[in-house]
Amino acid sequence: QIAEQAAEMFDRGLLAGQHVVITAGPTREAIDPVRYISNHSSGKMGYSLAEAAIDAGAQVTLISGPVNLPAPARCQRVMVESAEQMLEASLNHVSQCDIFIASAAVADYRPAAIAEHKMKKGKEEIMELHLVKNPDIVATVAALENKPFTVGFAAETKDVIGYAQGKLVRKNLDLIIANDVSRSDIGFNSDDNAVSVISIDSIKELPLCSKRQLAAKLVEIIAQAQTGSAKPGS
Amino acid sequence: QIAEQAAEMFDRGLLAGQHVVITAGPTREAIDPVRYISNHSSGKMGYSLAEAAIDAGAQVTLISGPVNLPAPARCQRVMVESAEQMLEASLNHVSQCDIFIASAAVADYRPAAIAEHKMKKGKEEIMELHLVKNPDIVATVAALENKPFTVGFAAETKDVIGYAQGKLVRKNLDLIIANDVSRSDIGFNSDDNAVSVISIDSIKELPLCSKRQLAAKLVEIIAQAQTGSAKPGS
Repeated sequence: QIAEQAAEMFDRGLLAGQHVVITAGPTREAIDPVRYISNHSSGKMGYSLAEAAIDAGAQVTLISGPVNLPAPARCQRVMVESAEQMLEASLNHVSQCDIFIASAAVADYRPAAIAEHKMKKGKEEIMELHLVKNPDIVATVAALENKPFTVGFAAETKDVIGYAQGKLVRKNLDLIIANDVSRSDIGFNSDDNAVSVISIDSIKELPLCSKRQLAAKLVEIIAQAQTGSAKPGS
Repeated sequence: QIAEQAAEMFDRGLLAGQHVVITAGPTREAIDPVRYISNHSSGKMGYSLAEAAIDAGAQVTLISGPVNLPAPARCQRVMVESAEQMLEASLNHVSQCDIFIASAAVADYRPAAIAEHKMKKGKEEIMELHLVKNPDIVATVAALENKPFTVGFAAETKDVIGYAQGKLVRKNLDLIIANDVSRSDIGFNSDDNAVSVISIDSIKELPLCSKRQLAAKLVEIIAQAQTGSAKPGS
């Protein structure tokens, strides 16, 4: 019966009339004009979510770090490099949105200063790179007075559920999607993924499948959770 | 007349019977299972050089960092991630080679230790990343007793010629190809490039053209310089 209901909702366009902002990919934090710190995020999960949300009838803004993926059709894509640029783009677009999905793998830290010229290799056998904490984009959005339904991601290598539940509460998220990036069959550069979807009172396991299939399921879960969370009269 | 000579040499296969090892792309230096330090090298210059060397009749081994480029046809490609892996692959292949072209943008430093698990963002507003110097691949090859004809690259943002000449001498290279990566019209992610080819007694400027055209010219210059440098009786 739930399956029927879901199918009906898809038929009607599960996210018709909704504006969804999705962040995707890694960020790059410049060390100097040629070097940077980044991570292995391919952007595939976020791009699949954007496509699934578009298929479900949503108007989608995709805020993307540097990836090698084409922009999905019928989608506004905003390309950024650093976490600070991604935050700025998110705040620019989020005030008008209903759902914010933060799937980007944002660098936690960035170099404290960007060298103007390429740093020369000296005789030093060791070097210290001074890093400062980046803004927490999903937490910043979730702290807004009129926050959208906010979905975070947790890529962990141990105690995946525990860390994800901690993030959900600490950052005031509505849902968090957790995956174990220590597994080599899933995660950052894989076409497949397996995740747990965690809310304040539930954990739902989604077994291994393609990121495309997973994205369709996640959009369904997010749409249903968002409907359920809507305040009376709103 | 020189042009005619060059055309003739190309007709005969300028590098026929020669084994050329080329490194290309960036290296990635792991911070933890998900994060790394890298740089903006696209690998296009090195891959173009591999294609030009193959066209000139050489047997080519391309040792490549992570890039989004297909392997050239008729080429042995060895994929690596870190500078240490690139050094190991280079030493494995260089003993049988006539020409070594180090076009990869090798990270000068790597994290001193790779964290086994993803580092958790703590409450710390700042963090120090401890780096150690990577092996110098081109200098290691150029220091071998039976070194191949060794060509280095210098990507600089200021005093380009000066730094490149210093590298040529200090690292015992036969040629160094210098470019100014502070120019936005050329360099790492561009399809075009303009370089200076520097030997111990000459500087040759190659004006802006496609990396493909430039690679053909560079292969010609390298082949001629290598022939000129061949020891009598060798």
